[in-house]
Amino acid sequence: MMCDSDNGISLENLSKFVVKRVLSDSPDRKLIFVEGSLEGHEGAAVLILEKKAFDEKTVRALCSEESVLVKSFVNDLYSTYECFPNTKVNGIKTTLIYPATEKHIKKFERKTVHIIQETPEIYKNITLPYILSETFSVQWVYNILEHKSEVEKIVFEDSDKDLGFILVPDLKWDGQTLESLYLQAVIHRRDIKSIRDLTTKHIPLLENIQTQGIKAIEEKYGVLQSQLRIYVHYLPSYYHLHVHFTYLQYDAPGINTERAHLLSTVIQNIQLLPDYYQKATIPYTLTEADPLYETFCDKGLLKKSTVVQQYPPTANHVSVDNN
Amino acid sequence: MMCDSDNGISLENLSKFVVKRVLSDSPDRKLIFVEGSLEGHEGAAVLILEKKAFDEKTVRALCSEESVLVKSFVNDLYSTYECFPNTKVNGIKTTLIYPATEKHIKKFERKTVHIIQETPEIYKNITLPYILSETFSVQWVYNILEHKSEVEKIVFEDSDKDLGFILVPDLKWDGQTLESLYLQAVIHRRDIKSIRDLTTKHIPLLENIQTQGIKAIEEKYGVLQSQLRIYVHYLPSYYHLHVHFTYLQYDAPGINTERAHLLSTVIQNIQLLPDYYQKATIPYTLTEADPLYETFCDKGLLKKSTVVQQYPPTANHVSVDNN
Repeated sequence: MMCDSDNGISLENLSKFVVKRVLSDSPDRKLIFVEGSLEGHEGAAVLILEKKAFDEKTVRALCSEESVLVKSFVNDLYSTYECFPNTKVNGIKTTLIYPATEKHIKKFERKTVHIIQETPEIYKNITLPYILSETFSVQWVYNILEHKSEVEKIVFEDSDKDLGFILVPDLKWDGQTLESLYLQAVIHRRDIKSIRDLTTKHIPLLENIQTQGIKAIEEKYGVLQSQLRIYVHYLPSYYHLHVHFTYLQYDAPGINTERAHLLSTVIQNIQLLPDYYQKATIPYTLTEADPLYETFCDKGLLKKSTVVQQYPPTANHVSVDNN
Repeated sequence: MMCDSDNGISLENLSKFVVKRVLSDSPDRKLIFVEGSLEGHEGAAVLILEKKAFDEKTVRALCSEESVLVKSFVNDLYSTYECFPNTKVNGIKTTLIYPATEKHIKKFERKTVHIIQETPEIYKNITLPYILSETFSVQWVYNILEHKSEVEKIVFEDSDKDLGFILVPDLKWDGQTLESLYLQAVIHRRDIKSIRDLTTKHIPLLENIQTQGIKAIEEKYGVLQSQLRIYVHYLPSYYHLHVHFTYLQYDAPGINTERAHLLSTVIQNIQLLPDYYQKATIPYTLTEADPLYETFCDKGLLKKSTVVQQYPPTANHVSVDNN
């Protein structure tokens, strides 16, 4: 039933996996992370299950007598069913992590997210000292800029030291599927950490990224300006200014309004008010696992949350006195 | 195999559905819309398939000998498989529309989306005349404000005619699951179409919505301010100012940076620059099916797009001369 290879474990079915608890799930993406153990083995295991996407071939295979329909309801021209197809055309992507460390479990555990309204004072007194105290290495960025790595990936380069940048595919993109197009423009200058540092003098740089990035993408991939989402993150994932270019219809991670700032809006805000990003209160999100969360709670800028529960409270919550 | 009820059709399996083409799909959500026909029946049919989300009960049922694993690879502590479970624990949500009209097919067809940078001139000369010429009825909004409908749903009301609003659950929300909390604050004033109309004099209104909305939600649902995303849409779906309150970790529709404007940022922009929303270039998105798309193309403000194709071109595209 089970055979241990040199470095890992290999299962023939899921009978040995003992569910302990759900770490987190995404009902939209049909994805779940489960903590458990393996019968006959010590220590924790993490099981990741994700339903597979449909493609035309699978749909054609599904349309057979083996796909049994159980009717939910019929209303005029609409009828709904649960379909039980032959298992061969309906597999589930499955990943097992064993032995799973405390770190794996923490990583997949649902983390409560908070939004903080960062005033200029909070930036100066809390965020900036934190950024400077952490050694966020951007050596990998310098390696790209110095042509020491990923040279073959460069889609476009403007080598001007003030206005220039390198356009490369994001690691998340396969470089091929235009529906998930994702590139990053990384600037040559090394003195801009984030949008907080931007002022009037950076407008030529920002406009250069916009104009030449759009042109390079249209020439190489045939995707129009109006089909691109061009934005920066705040907080960014690394503190060297970079601009994201994604296909507008692609739900890329981090495109929500509380994280992504359209480059066109950034340029305009500085045009309307030269010190916009020094004066503005800018929101950012952080999880309760983030060291900054504790700092904000200690200073009374965020409240400690209770985990969101079902509303109305279930019997368990109401009868807590009986325990 | 098939029985026609009074108004619709009822299938026992999927053997009679003949696939014509995929109208659109969402690989992330594991959802697909397919155009086809039904053997022995005239006219078009639309088949909608969506994989089901996981819950703990299903996962426990899945962990059995009947869930056969086919190994993809083992690497150290990580092993990946395709899992073929008993079909009973792995159903697919299925909807059939028959007979499907041209309108159904259009509705589910993938639509290319474009982003337009709306300058004040474009607003004045194109968007505003369009809004005014279309009879977007907001009678249903007035019914809520006048307590003629949905009275029992009101979560909070401030009846002040200048600063007041009604807070109601959004139609998309079940009113219970806090993880998908979604409320709308609808203002009593009837003279504000969208953020384009906002100026300094509206700050007390906007701040009132923010302060009292947050307070009402914390009191009723126990969700903290820092766990809320509070925003307006541009373009809005109806032209009577309303503010969305959603749970921060819920990926509600329309929270992308090109559509959603955080209320805190809107208030601040007006504080920094009283006529920000009259001066600003504001982006908005529209599909090629939108009447405004043709207008923008005619005026040279948008280019006609080709459908995004695989890159690099496949053999089919290269050898087009051979056909």
